[in-house]
Amino acid sequence: MSVTDYTNLGFTTIRVQLDGAIAVVTLARTKQRNTFVQPLAEDLIKAYDILDRDDRVRVVVLTAEPDAPAFCAGADLNGGWERILTEEAENEGEHAHRDSGGQVTMAIFRCRKITIVAVNGHAVGVGFTGLQLPCDIRFAWAGAKLAFPFVRRGIAPEACSSYLLPRLIGHSRAMALFITGATVTPDSPLLDGLYYAILSKREDVFPAALALAKDLAENTSGTAIAVTKALVWRGFDNIEEQHIVDSRAIRILARSPDAEEGAVAFKQRRAPKFADKLSRLSPWMPWWREINVKHRKSRL
Amino acid sequence: MSVTDYTNLGFTTIRVQLDGAIAVVTLARTKQRNTFVQPLAEDLIKAYDILDRDDRVRVVVLTAEPDAPAFCAGADLNGGWERILTEEAENEGEHAHRDSGGQVTMAIFRCRKITIVAVNGHAVGVGFTGLQLPCDIRFAWAGAKLAFPFVRRGIAPEACSSYLLPRLIGHSRAMALFITGATVTPDSPLLDGLYYAILSKREDVFPAALALAKDLAENTSGTAIAVTKALVWRGFDNIEEQHIVDSRAIRILARSPDAEEGAVAFKQRRAPKFADKLSRLSPWMPWWREINVKHRKSRL
Amino acid sequence: MSVTDYTNLGFTTIRVQLDGAIAVVTLARTKQRNTFVQPLAEDLIKAYDILDRDDRVRVVVLTAEPDAPAFCAGADLNGGWERILTEEAENEGEHAHRDSGGQVTMAIFRCRKITIVAVNGHAVGVGFTGLQLPCDIRFAWAGAKLAFPFVRRGIAPEACSSYLLPRLIGHSRAMALFITGATVTPDSPLLDGLYYAILSKREDVFPAALALAKDLAENTSGTAIAVTKALVWRGFDNIEEQHIVDSRAIRILARSPDAEEGAVAFKQRRAPKFADKLSRLSPWMPWWREINVKHRKSRL
Repeated sequence: MSVTDYTNLGFTTIRVQLDGAIAVVTLARTKQRNTFVQPLAEDLIKAYDILDRDDRVRVVVLTAEPDAPAFCAGADLNGGWERILTEEAENEGEHAHRDSGGQVTMAIFRCRKITIVAVNGHAVGVGFTGLQLPCDIRFAWAGAKLAFPFVRRGIAPEACSSYLLPRLIGHSRAMALFITGATVTPDSPLLDGLYYAILSKREDVFPAALALAKDLAENTSGTAIAVTKALVWRGFDNIEEQHIVDSRAIRILARSPDAEEGAVAFKQRRAPKFADKLSRLSPWMPWWREINVKHRKSRL
Repeated sequence: MSVTDYTNLGFTTIRVQLDGAIAVVTLARTKQRNTFVQPLAEDLIKAYDILDRDDRVRVVVLTAEPDAPAFCAGADLNGGWERILTEEAENEGEHAHRDSGGQVTMAIFRCRKITIVAVNGHAVGVGFTGLQLPCDIRFAWAGAKLAFPFVRRGIAPEACSSYLLPRLIGHSRAMALFITGATVTPDSPLLDGLYYAILSKREDVFPAALALAKDLAENTSGTAIAVTKALVWRGFDNIEEQHIVDSRAIRILARSPDAEEGAVAFKQRRAPKFADKLSRLSPWMPWWREINVKHRKSRL
Repeated sequence: MSVTDYTNLGFTTIRVQLDGAIAVVTLARTKQRNTFVQPLAEDLIKAYDILDRDDRVRVVVLTAEPDAPAFCAGADLNGGWERILTEEAENEGEHAHRDSGGQVTMAIFRCRKITIVAVNGHAVGVGFTGLQLPCDIRFAWAGAKLAFPFVRRGIAPEACSSYLLPRLIGHSRAMALFITGATVTPDSPLLDGLYYAILSKREDVFPAALALAKDLAENTSGTAIAVTKALVWRGFDNIEEQHIVDSRAIRILARSPDAEEGAVAFKQRRAPKFADKLSRLSPWMPWWREINVKHRKSRL
């Protein structure tokens, strides 16, 4: 495999910078308040798909310019809803539509690296559902306005948020947020538990996220992280099957170079130097059934 | 369809008043502390079933008289458990029993309108499980005593509460409440996240609920709300299937009159005037399999 | 059945003391910081399996000596990971491994009595996942250091914790704890909702747990508790099936001696005297499918 040069992938709506094991993805439609348009969706899907498979990358931090008017102002509704509707659905029927917000959500959700989002500005709609919910860890600016106005615009929460938000913070809070179409700040009791840290100064949000990213890139095992994420999100609905699958995970990892290094470093009371590669991980993953989300065209 | 007159439906244990798009259901067994008896169950099931299908209704607020001795004092145990046991189960066997508390829970749960409960008094047993948990949004009086004494009376939590409470606030808090058979007030850490707002004055609870009801009746789309509720409670157990179903929901709604109005109102920076009717919503719903809960008699 | 003498069961790593209806299980590897070794796993599995079926026992409290250097310092890594790997997996393949932490988790999880843990010291790894998460109610010392360093050692969270923790406190907090491999104290916002009570003095933790145990042993019904636990953890993924199963549970319990006593005691305004035995409970339980977790040897 040739080495990926992230400055050379043709991104027009984001910047991707790799520094050591940390990739920073910066939304680059600052003048347009980082509104969510099709090219942005495509760039994000492409970026997370590559970052997922680039062995150099351990942590991905998504953020916006700290002086942008918004982290992401959501879909641009000035032209109505037409731009979110795909041609395929027009030709094939409503069942053929695939929401671009959800495609971004899934690209982040499926990324086996540590995914962090540094919400250093206001976020509306998909700027909350698609860019924040699928990440492992969320940092936010205390002054960020977070708006979920779906039902106040005549549509429903998208981007798989009706799957993620109830699981992340419980159905009670999730339903209250969705039904009221609320605008809140990160310290709202309705969001309790969603943010890992809330920073009072906007310019402190990204550095705080980056500091955690550096700690985790240096001191955690990439294979262990990938398995952990899968166990949490792709586990079973009963404890017995989870026992069978986590036993196998433990057995595979305990025989891996990273676990050996982890035990030796622990014994020597020093920081570990993990060197295993995710691309080497057992073909046993994925153990789950993954539903095909592609629409198969029915007309010539 | 003729226009429903809620004062003329023969309710004896509740009052239903329709004011614009808001229906207020008031428990009317004040002298009996609103204990839960079979006629009350039947009135509530009938009311929510009709309110669900009455296109005029956008929000249903359930409450009690603010000077009632209790919001709902639970089942009346003075005659033992006999009155909660149905004749059908006596004849057919234990598997034929259907809990009336659960039937009320399901009637509220299945109502596709916004369901709010204003708990302006003490609540015991089914007054918590059946009347509060299935609602979308809960307001409570800070002084309300909430009691779940099931295991202290020799029975188990009913009314589908073992389904709803763990999902609403997590298994840890739900299990602690059920196992201890606790009596708490709404600000208990064990209930954290369950109530949308807790009011210190009893007489402020219903007005606060009504104010939110008015905002939501005016500024949200009824079709969007119905789809949102279904996505949250009738979604899939994996993100891919949720993506397929929420994509279709977005596509259907984005082509609807309410979404068009939502986008135009947004562009014109004015409040929307949603006029779509829930009865017009795509026959695509329900997309889920709904288990038949009726017992089929096996004896002549 | 002969009466079990818990002092005579050959336990070497725990002490089990039965006082009335309350069994106290004390970790007895104090000098070894209660590290988790195979004999400890075997003793705990054996103890909870018997306590589950001993009709005298209503509540099980798990704790450590209050002056122990740790509640449980996790797996002993000084010899690397070898000691957690079973011979069977070496011979049969990675799929044959069964994690001993998970076996303890399941023994506690399956115990139909009230399970309380009094965390009166530091806890690492399986001392958190295996000994705390499967319990119904958790008490903790405010000064206890709780560490989940899995990903910092090259392995993944074990002992079914990827099943339990997201359900107990939500996926957002659970993922943050697992991914960061954090060390926190019980009052961490990341653990919000997990502990029933947090005590500032270490020596107060066990007495507080014991006081609740006494209340619950005296004033709750053992059959009602067993059914409640099953409804919460072995319920269905849709409200209709839960209605069918909790209706049957209510019907069975309402006809039981404990419910009769519960109603009479309520009417007479006195504390109940529950006398029913769990061993008498309807063979209708378990209603759920329980996956076989045993590995079937494929080689002679």
